[in-house]
Amino acid sequence: MDNEFGKHYLVEFINCNAEKLKYVKDVKKVFISAAKKSNATILKYYFNQFKPTGVSGIMLIAESHFSIHTWPDHDYAAFDMFSCGHIESDIAISILRTGFEAEKAEVKIISRGRLLK
Amino acid sequence: MDNEFGKHYLVEFINCNAEKLKYVKDVKKVFISAAKKSNATILKYYFNQFKPTGVSGIMLIAESHFSIHTWPDHDYAAFDMFSCGHIESDIAISILRTGFEAEKAEVKIISRGRLLK
Repeated sequence: MDNEFGKHYLVEFINCNAEKLKYVKDVKKVFISAAKKSNATILKYYFNQFKPTGVSGIMLIAESHFSIHTWPDHDYAAFDMFSCGHIESDIAISILRTGFEAEKAEVKIISRGRLLK
Repeated sequence: MDNEFGKHYLVEFINCNAEKLKYVKDVKKVFISAAKKSNATILKYYFNQFKPTGVSGIMLIAESHFSIHTWPDHDYAAFDMFSCGHIESDIAISILRTGFEAEKAEVKIISRGRLLK
């Protein structure tokens, strides 16, 4: 097997505005906007509020999945996006970066399905 | 910021038994067993059945998330596990590999939160 079945994007959002990372209502709004505007077909999503602050969210899309985990105390959010279809990944990352007011977005792209060695 | 906030495991299960990858009922059973036995704290999960066969599943855990996507036509499944807590990752991978009867499990471990450059 040496096919590629999708691309997995791992993104570190660094030096964010911590206020944007604290609560589900704020993170959810940006996350869903990123999914919609990148042409993902949303199937289901779920968010969890950590106390006092911090958010985790996962979203199943027809093209695979998105996830977000935030650490407001460190102005940091971790995003991943596994895409087997026609997702506008740059748009998703840009919307999240803008929404979180991140100074930097560090992106790793991992090819899934290939033999890795 | 140069801390590590978690480890992200990307696993390719290769040359699986396709019968084990086709339907939600089978994939879900193995996936939940992997989560429970690796000491994950399950918050929510959701699975989608592709027609005629193929499954996507996501699970939010207190320690971050698990996801699975299967391609029975290619005897292939893609698993990812983002762990910020005390997850027994080897156990999770082993249970999935056994359950899918995979000939190979190729594991990549990505450190999340560090500056990647």
